[in-house]
Amino acid sequence: MQAMTLYGSSDSGNCLKPKWVAQHLGVAVEWIEVSAFDGTTRKPEFLAINPAGQVPVAIFAGGRILAQSNAIMIYLAEGSDLIPSDAFARAKMFEWMCWEQYSHEPYIAVRIARLYYLKKREDELDPALLTKGNAALARMELQLKETPYLVGDALSLADIALVAYTRKAHMGGFDMREFPAVQAWVKRVEAALDLAPLH
Amino acid sequence: MQAMTLYGSSDSGNCLKPKWVAQHLGVAVEWIEVSAFDGTTRKPEFLAINPAGQVPVAIFAGGRILAQSNAIMIYLAEGSDLIPSDAFARAKMFEWMCWEQYSHEPYIAVRIARLYYLKKREDELDPALLTKGNAALARMELQLKETPYLVGDALSLADIALVAYTRKAHMGGFDMREFPAVQAWVKRVEAALDLAPLH
Repeated sequence: MQAMTLYGSSDSGNCLKPKWVAQHLGVAVEWIEVSAFDGTTRKPEFLAINPAGQVPVAIFAGGRILAQSNAIMIYLAEGSDLIPSDAFARAKMFEWMCWEQYSHEPYIAVRIARLYYLKKREDELDPALLTKGNAALARMELQLKETPYLVGDALSLADIALVAYTRKAHMGGFDMREFPAVQAWVKRVEAALDLAPLH
Repeated sequence: MQAMTLYGSSDSGNCLKPKWVAQHLGVAVEWIEVSAFDGTTRKPEFLAINPAGQVPVAIFAGGRILAQSNAIMIYLAEGSDLIPSDAFARAKMFEWMCWEQYSHEPYIAVRIARLYYLKKREDELDPALLTKGNAALARMELQLKETPYLVGDALSLADIALVAYTRKAHMGGFDMREFPAVQAWVKRVEAALDLAPLH
């Protein structure tokens, strides 16, 4: 795999996911820091790169542009051991990655952003963020009581996709003591990715 | 590919997507109708099948369970011409599929559900649903002025994922006359999937 230029915000788990995959696989990354909060992603020069106005966005050789954290991760990791070779295990990996964006990130990442980065008070937040975020963590706990990684015995893109915001969930006011299997898995994935623990 | 049992709601584009892929590829489908509105997906007997409490969910031979519309579509279509063989085109397909769930469905599908199925009035809805839904349609228009399908010249899973709610967008109060390339593409994809037009 050729080198990748990655536009991203260091505060955004979605942006760190493809960076971690590249680092894990030895793909060179040129990181260009873009704030997710100051409106840069809505400016014409950024929209020319990604009309969706979102980070992360990656540029590969020949100027080929790819957006969406999951799509970039899959592209980087094709043919590597981060994608299970068994077709059904691979499908379960996609299931977790899609579920993360739909049923985990919109609650857990949003609560982290509002409480920790935007300094909102608990009582200014939609209570559904806590309820649904806790439901997402409970769903992970159920799986991680059974298997060391989300898809069986080996690290896959599903773990990298899910660990990004789960490891910061305490910064969003989630009580991680209720999810011991998730906590142990966070440590396991951090060690596999060579990430320093956040707490 | 073996036969599939699919739990889904006929009103839900997310549920129809894997059904259409199966039909297009000649995979036998046993469809089990589940309402997305009456609480069935929160009952213990359903949660035993999918702890995420969502449709669609598919059951394959040997009782193997797979959730998330995108994951089921990818599993069904692996090795078929609905997934581009070129690695970068395949990555762009994943980009559109991920973007749909994150930046299209939460506005367009939600507005369709509230206005058409739940009979809410326009003034009861969050105005952001219209703004962000229109932005999503404009993003599609930009691409579909350039290429007949979302990823180049051939039908892929990206088109099936995106057409499900886009073809119903008028039911959510979106003015499709503003998006002529999208309208033409809806007709093209409906014809390819042998679907009767909705209007």
